[in-house]
Amino acid sequence: MVKRSSLEGGECPVARALDAIGDGWSLLIIRDAFDGIHRFGEFQRNLGMAKNILAVRLKNLVAHGVLEIVPASDGSAYQEYVLTEKGKGLFHLIIGLRQWGEEYLYEAGERHSVMVDRQQGAALRPLELRAEDGRLLGPEDCRRIPVAGA
Amino acid sequence: MVKRSSLEGGECPVARALDAIGDGWSLLIIRDAFDGIHRFGEFQRNLGMAKNILAVRLKNLVAHGVLEIVPASDGSAYQEYVLTEKGKGLFHLIIGLRQWGEEYLYEAGERHSVMVDRQQGAALRPLELRAEDGRLLGPEDCRRIPVAGA
Repeated sequence: MVKRSSLEGGECPVARALDAIGDGWSLLIIRDAFDGIHRFGEFQRNLGMAKNILAVRLKNLVAHGVLEIVPASDGSAYQEYVLTEKGKGLFHLIIGLRQWGEEYLYEAGERHSVMVDRQQGAALRPLELRAEDGRLLGPEDCRRIPVAGA
Repeated sequence: MVKRSSLEGGECPVARALDAIGDGWSLLIIRDAFDGIHRFGEFQRNLGMAKNILAVRLKNLVAHGVLEIVPASDGSAYQEYVLTEKGKGLFHLIIGLRQWGEEYLYEAGERHSVMVDRQQGAALRPLELRAEDGRLLGPEDCRRIPVAGA
């Protein structure tokens, strides 16, 4: 696991949450892809990752079908990495990391990036988990069943 | 990063999602804590982790205020690790990993563990992100603002 101590004081609650709970280069790449970063050099500059590590993680994300390689959107010779449908499915996970980081990993008044609703520019509600009938569920309301077959 | 190839075919969508996107021993410990596992030996058996690695991860989670050590619930001499309020705040993250894993990392009909609503025993709705005014939001509806000050 690569220690990202340089991110501990950073502005992104996603990065800070990952620093607290585990490795997260891949999730940081995905976070950046949601933010509209698509090129190798942009990821590299934004994350400050070694090129060889970044190359391995991008290759792995493409192999897992989270990112796909497409021609550059501006018609140039660059390749771009974009989220697949499977990759976009990680949206709630990234938001979950962010909201936990925002709630628990910053002092009052400490600066951090925020995610807003594009239409209103307003803050987002916390993620909600609901039962089929619409009841809001917390940890005590759920139970894991080890295995469900076909 | 420890490679957990033994979990790739496993029953837990959380474990499989982490296998695809990064290291996850700490998140697997947290997942187990939500499932009611509290003792060192139980974590060790359930996760199949080396004791020294587990000890380091547990210590780290306690240091980060995600878990706390409490006397055994049965009055025995064992210590138990339980989620703090901050730790319980990771519920939506664990659910997010699970739902992504369920959606994208299993073949049709392939067996996996499922999370159900304790009251009805029914499946959960997918996590929902909403704007202040209640509109359901996806990735394209959100925008990250790099820094918000105090």
